[in-house]
Amino acid sequence: MVQLVERQQDYQAIARKLSQEFSGNAVARDLEAGLPTYEIDRLRQAGLLTLVIPSEYGGAGESIPTAMKVLQELSKADGSVGQLYCNHLGLTTLAHVSGSSTQKEYYYRGTVEHQWFWGNSINLRDTRLKLTPTGDRFRLDGVKGFGTGIPVADQLVFGAFQEGVEVPFLVVLPKGREGITFNDDWNNVGQRRTASGSISFDNVRVEPSEILGYPNPPDNAFATFLGIIAQLTKAYVYLGIAEGALEAASQYTRTLSRPWITSGVSYATADPYILQHYGELWSSLAAAIALADRTAQAAQAAWEKESALTHEERAEVAVAVFATKAAATRAGLEVTNHIFELTGSRSTDVQFGFDRYWRDLRTFTLHDPVDYKYRDIGNWFLNHEHPVVTQYS
Amino acid sequence: MVQLVERQQDYQAIARKLSQEFSGNAVARDLEAGLPTYEIDRLRQAGLLTLVIPSEYGGAGESIPTAMKVLQELSKADGSVGQLYCNHLGLTTLAHVSGSSTQKEYYYRGTVEHQWFWGNSINLRDTRLKLTPTGDRFRLDGVKGFGTGIPVADQLVFGAFQEGVEVPFLVVLPKGREGITFNDDWNNVGQRRTASGSISFDNVRVEPSEILGYPNPPDNAFATFLGIIAQLTKAYVYLGIAEGALEAASQYTRTLSRPWITSGVSYATADPYILQHYGELWSSLAAAIALADRTAQAAQAAWEKESALTHEERAEVAVAVFATKAAATRAGLEVTNHIFELTGSRSTDVQFGFDRYWRDLRTFTLHDPVDYKYRDIGNWFLNHEHPVVTQYS
Amino acid sequence: MVQLVERQQDYQAIARKLSQEFSGNAVARDLEAGLPTYEIDRLRQAGLLTLVIPSEYGGAGESIPTAMKVLQELSKADGSVGQLYCNHLGLTTLAHVSGSSTQKEYYYRGTVEHQWFWGNSINLRDTRLKLTPTGDRFRLDGVKGFGTGIPVADQLVFGAFQEGVEVPFLVVLPKGREGITFNDDWNNVGQRRTASGSISFDNVRVEPSEILGYPNPPDNAFATFLGIIAQLTKAYVYLGIAEGALEAASQYTRTLSRPWITSGVSYATADPYILQHYGELWSSLAAAIALADRTAQAAQAAWEKESALTHEERAEVAVAVFATKAAATRAGLEVTNHIFELTGSRSTDVQFGFDRYWRDLRTFTLHDPVDYKYRDIGNWFLNHEHPVVTQYS
Amino acid sequence: MVQLVERQQDYQAIARKLSQEFSGNAVARDLEAGLPTYEIDRLRQAGLLTLVIPSEYGGAGESIPTAMKVLQELSKADGSVGQLYCNHLGLTTLAHVSGSSTQKEYYYRGTVEHQWFWGNSINLRDTRLKLTPTGDRFRLDGVKGFGTGIPVADQLVFGAFQEGVEVPFLVVLPKGREGITFNDDWNNVGQRRTASGSISFDNVRVEPSEILGYPNPPDNAFATFLGIIAQLTKAYVYLGIAEGALEAASQYTRTLSRPWITSGVSYATADPYILQHYGELWSSLAAAIALADRTAQAAQAAWEKESALTHEERAEVAVAVFATKAAATRAGLEVTNHIFELTGSRSTDVQFGFDRYWRDLRTFTLHDPVDYKYRDIGNWFLNHEHPVVTQYS
Repeated sequence: MVQLVERQQDYQAIARKLSQEFSGNAVARDLEAGLPTYEIDRLRQAGLLTLVIPSEYGGAGESIPTAMKVLQELSKADGSVGQLYCNHLGLTTLAHVSGSSTQKEYYYRGTVEHQWFWGNSINLRDTRLKLTPTGDRFRLDGVKGFGTGIPVADQLVFGAFQEGVEVPFLVVLPKGREGITFNDDWNNVGQRRTASGSISFDNVRVEPSEILGYPNPPDNAFATFLGIIAQLTKAYVYLGIAEGALEAASQYTRTLSRPWITSGVSYATADPYILQHYGELWSSLAAAIALADRTAQAAQAAWEKESALTHEERAEVAVAVFATKAAATRAGLEVTNHIFELTGSRSTDVQFGFDRYWRDLRTFTLHDPVDYKYRDIGNWFLNHEHPVVTQYS
Repeated sequence: MVQLVERQQDYQAIARKLSQEFSGNAVARDLEAGLPTYEIDRLRQAGLLTLVIPSEYGGAGESIPTAMKVLQELSKADGSVGQLYCNHLGLTTLAHVSGSSTQKEYYYRGTVEHQWFWGNSINLRDTRLKLTPTGDRFRLDGVKGFGTGIPVADQLVFGAFQEGVEVPFLVVLPKGREGITFNDDWNNVGQRRTASGSISFDNVRVEPSEILGYPNPPDNAFATFLGIIAQLTKAYVYLGIAEGALEAASQYTRTLSRPWITSGVSYATADPYILQHYGELWSSLAAAIALADRTAQAAQAAWEKESALTHEERAEVAVAVFATKAAATRAGLEVTNHIFELTGSRSTDVQFGFDRYWRDLRTFTLHDPVDYKYRDIGNWFLNHEHPVVTQYS
Repeated sequence: MVQLVERQQDYQAIARKLSQEFSGNAVARDLEAGLPTYEIDRLRQAGLLTLVIPSEYGGAGESIPTAMKVLQELSKADGSVGQLYCNHLGLTTLAHVSGSSTQKEYYYRGTVEHQWFWGNSINLRDTRLKLTPTGDRFRLDGVKGFGTGIPVADQLVFGAFQEGVEVPFLVVLPKGREGITFNDDWNNVGQRRTASGSISFDNVRVEPSEILGYPNPPDNAFATFLGIIAQLTKAYVYLGIAEGALEAASQYTRTLSRPWITSGVSYATADPYILQHYGELWSSLAAAIALADRTAQAAQAAWEKESALTHEERAEVAVAVFATKAAATRAGLEVTNHIFELTGSRSTDVQFGFDRYWRDLRTFTLHDPVDYKYRDIGNWFLNHEHPVVTQYS
Repeated sequence: MVQLVERQQDYQAIARKLSQEFSGNAVARDLEAGLPTYEIDRLRQAGLLTLVIPSEYGGAGESIPTAMKVLQELSKADGSVGQLYCNHLGLTTLAHVSGSSTQKEYYYRGTVEHQWFWGNSINLRDTRLKLTPTGDRFRLDGVKGFGTGIPVADQLVFGAFQEGVEVPFLVVLPKGREGITFNDDWNNVGQRRTASGSISFDNVRVEPSEILGYPNPPDNAFATFLGIIAQLTKAYVYLGIAEGALEAASQYTRTLSRPWITSGVSYATADPYILQHYGELWSSLAAAIALADRTAQAAQAAWEKESALTHEERAEVAVAVFATKAAATRAGLEVTNHIFELTGSRSTDVQFGFDRYWRDLRTFTLHDPVDYKYRDIGNWFLNHEHPVVTQYS
């Protein structure tokens, strides 16, 4: 990426350093699973929690392209950190898009002042969380099947539904609000340290100021643009995981792999097929990264238009994001699968943790189907139709 | 497969029933890891340990094609069982190929009478196990880095090297021979219940009758043919794992998957992309299975030629086996990766164990590189050259 | 394929010899395009026109598996010959499936006695050919957009529609019937010598005995089974084209390709990547062929059941045929594309004709979409639903 | 690409317009083959021949990134034009890299003043063209097996060898020099209108001023950097061809394709698989283009360093260019193969010319093997080794 301006802090360098730290204990943390309090503390100490908050509110004011490189760097070490941080990045700007100007200011300034970490269970396909007016306030009751970061976050965002109201509401609650139970029931094959799981709500108090309007106006392209950014951030987590896998594998090949008996070479690093496959994987990944970086620039330009963003412009960026997500998914699965053929049979030892790249990527890429991304891209290219707006598009 | 003759026992049906039993507790056993004593007991009770021992010695006398279908059926439920059993099948015939006629008879009859289960650590790339003459006997000292089934087997086969002798020896020792320590250090991402790990040898007594000649004569094509069979059996384990994955996924899609929000269909089973991908995966797998079954027939024909087998014939079968292994590896990786896209994000819950198909397959397919299989096939097709004979070819 | 019975004539050997002859002038004939009268004469002289006609009618009485290997052999040399012959094979049995017993006998015996070559324009998606009763007879008027072999065939089959009748009719007319004009307007990128093109009909006389009932009874599984056989024969043409391409390329690599400057080898035949790719292509093709041959046996078993064939059995064979067609298409496109990377830049000279393999395969595989084959396979595997019966399924 | 500066001429817009003109008669010109005099006249009239010549010499002074987009635009319409123009771009700067300052000035100014079109037969693998000193001058005798643009170029560059001198010479001769015979023997499956073919030399006079030093100094990274640029330009021709193919196909699908009979949709443009595949192809191509554009920027930065370019920097750009070339080759083959499945069987009619995309791409991508590009990338990533410098790397 072209270096455009001088910065006070080089956040990519900070992320790189923190990523190296995370790499050192990632295998152990993955095996332990458990809550990512250490990780979030370190993100906070590194100053990364306010990365995209505008400088006028005291944040670092970094652009989407820079934030994405920071995210990619962190994800190289640890997919769970990537998921937590990619959600956090979007959530810190939620009130900017869906809130009143008071809410926007409150949450931007609060995140800077208190260094809040954000978690959520928005998922609007899950309609079991009910918002009910009770006099001047509201209450939440029900359940959300899946949220991330809830037990470790300072501000929690939930998607809820009110009887008789078609559009959902986004509710932001501070940590410790009574009546919320995190069920700690996430035991999945990857992304094991994301503090994910279901959440139960029993007569949870909600102040009117804690409810974001969603979306307002409903036909505004910018109001739903954060969903597109969310897709882009996920793609950068995939890219980071894949890059981490490829680097870790190459380190193993250089130091521990043995040449094949009929290869005629003395070192695995001279094997013609190992070289070829590293070249193939590197090229696939490089192309996906280049596409992502170009898309991040387009996303930034769209973001800056705010409510002037047209539906046509939103659709163009959405399609670029979908292609990025698809390319990152494909390249990532290719890399995380094939590294084993470049390291050899002994590299499956649990101590090396090479399977976690695949487990993390495979788990996190299932968020929404790639086929429907392709369909939307095709429909735009062939028929000039915009993607239907959903939480995922 | 064409039904050729009437049989007293339908071993495929027996295997199918046992496979269903293994399926029922496979996820739990994978999580537990531990020794596969239960599995081997059940194989023994089902009468499967003597499947390929000629009927003249009291065995079931089944052909390679039938044995491979039994192996595929078992592997559908559990890759670890597949690995243990595929090794066992070959090892029960080891003395037939490499032993004296006395040894051949002794081990065939003994396996039938005592229902021996066989394990091994032959791996000839690992030359650290030394065989030393001591008067009328020999002793074994050193270490083998990797063996399978050792702590649960009744007969153990080791590859050992004698000072000053170029060719390696295969030594068969009964269970409980003093001085052998199984180090129980296998903690790998897949094939977790194979009783694998390193083995230490300290002044282990070896009787001359326990040493198989290997190979004799060294230029005989049949003497090294068991290595080709071993490759074929591995391919059937891959096919079984993939078949099991596809069936388990389809069961999930039918009962638990939800239709995508923009799909326009009411059930995941009507989604055009889910149907397409099931069709693709099924087709890839069907082609690999068809190639395997054809190859198994060619292997049986070659096996029946015994020492009359020519090097040209061995090469032809070897090439067919290599292509089978490559096709099974490719189809298997395709299936075990993509099933998740057909079941959805919630299917990554550890309780479903869908990752074990990939972990098992990915681990077991690293035994030797597919690229060198392709090279050997290409060299035979293009240059009419036979594969160099190794333990893997 | 297992050798099942002794035969008087080894038709595969005959086909192999004829295929070699066709190979010798295939490039020139492709460039010339024009009518394939020479090719059909040679097929007739070789005795291949009556290959699948039952021996009780004087035909060779060969099974579907044998006929498919003959077809594959011919297609190795020339995709156009493959298409003409694969159509002919099915058409010679058309009256068996769709005709009265008199028609069946007439066309079987006539084909044997007169050595008729058959062509057709059945395509039921094209409904512009009208059959009109005129007293004791009928007349045909209109147009068919695409037929194959019409100007060189002795018996011509057309799909026609009668006003007020829902099901289409198949009409068999002898060569030379007045009012039929072959428009000779096929100028497509592949399969250039198939005597294809549109046909105009002006008041063409049709005798009642020349109309086959179609299908009768309409819910009989066998009545529509010839469509499935037609799909299988197409797959064998694809396999033959791919096999021919791979063999021709290997001949070039052995004799004309030069080693790459940084390869470190003296001959292209020793290049590690060239060997690898030949191995990959050969393996893909071998798997597709094995699947095809297994499917051909299943098709033969189904064919022998005649009207006792159940819809369930028809569906099972149909699905196997679809998978075969898909596998052949994929392997074929892989081979015909990549051979150039194994022969090098100078091999694109028109004199070698290596592009004709791709042009022929690409053209002929568009007959009906592979995606819908996958969907039908998936729907059968996942939902146990039979493919909807069409001309293509 | 980010718009960096104001320009007097928008060359991309000029190229787009010219490309549309070329599209209109590309099918006819491909069928005719023949000399591309019309195409070169149009390039000249459009002012594109001096695109990368520095403005100080009167050229347009455009950067590599801009030149590449112009090249991509032209290649969309016609791969032959792309090849002629990509060669021309590099050749106009040849004296800058390999010549004396006098030669650099002479050829830059001459190209501007006379609007020279450049052609070449450099190919250093072909060593049959001999340069012989004769008094104050030299003569050329022998043959070059393959050159492009020779009969239509104003300045011709040849790679020649002098007895006893290890390094080759580049000789620049003006049009019409006596003793040069263009043999017009290019009759290959693609890139048919590139004025390619072999050239014979009989006692051709060469002035000392017409010989470029090559390379000087031989260990300078910049001296061989034009070979890397040449690889990049080829990649843009591939991308252009693929983009042109995808656009032409989409136009056909929108207007001429019919929905499949069991698709349940009324228009081919609503078919779920057609939409999916357009999405896949578009995404692959978008990723390759993004990688190319990023690489073009790196190439420009390297180009500006001139002789200060280090070997490390050259290697980094080279690796990026190789990855670009590989990605463009893969995406291009994917697109040019699969468009037919999105347009349908009738689209193989020669009048639509859809095969020319594949024929052109397949022919032009064989220039040097992709596998060795992957090997070089892998060797750099894994072993931090620079690619061996050749004409292709």
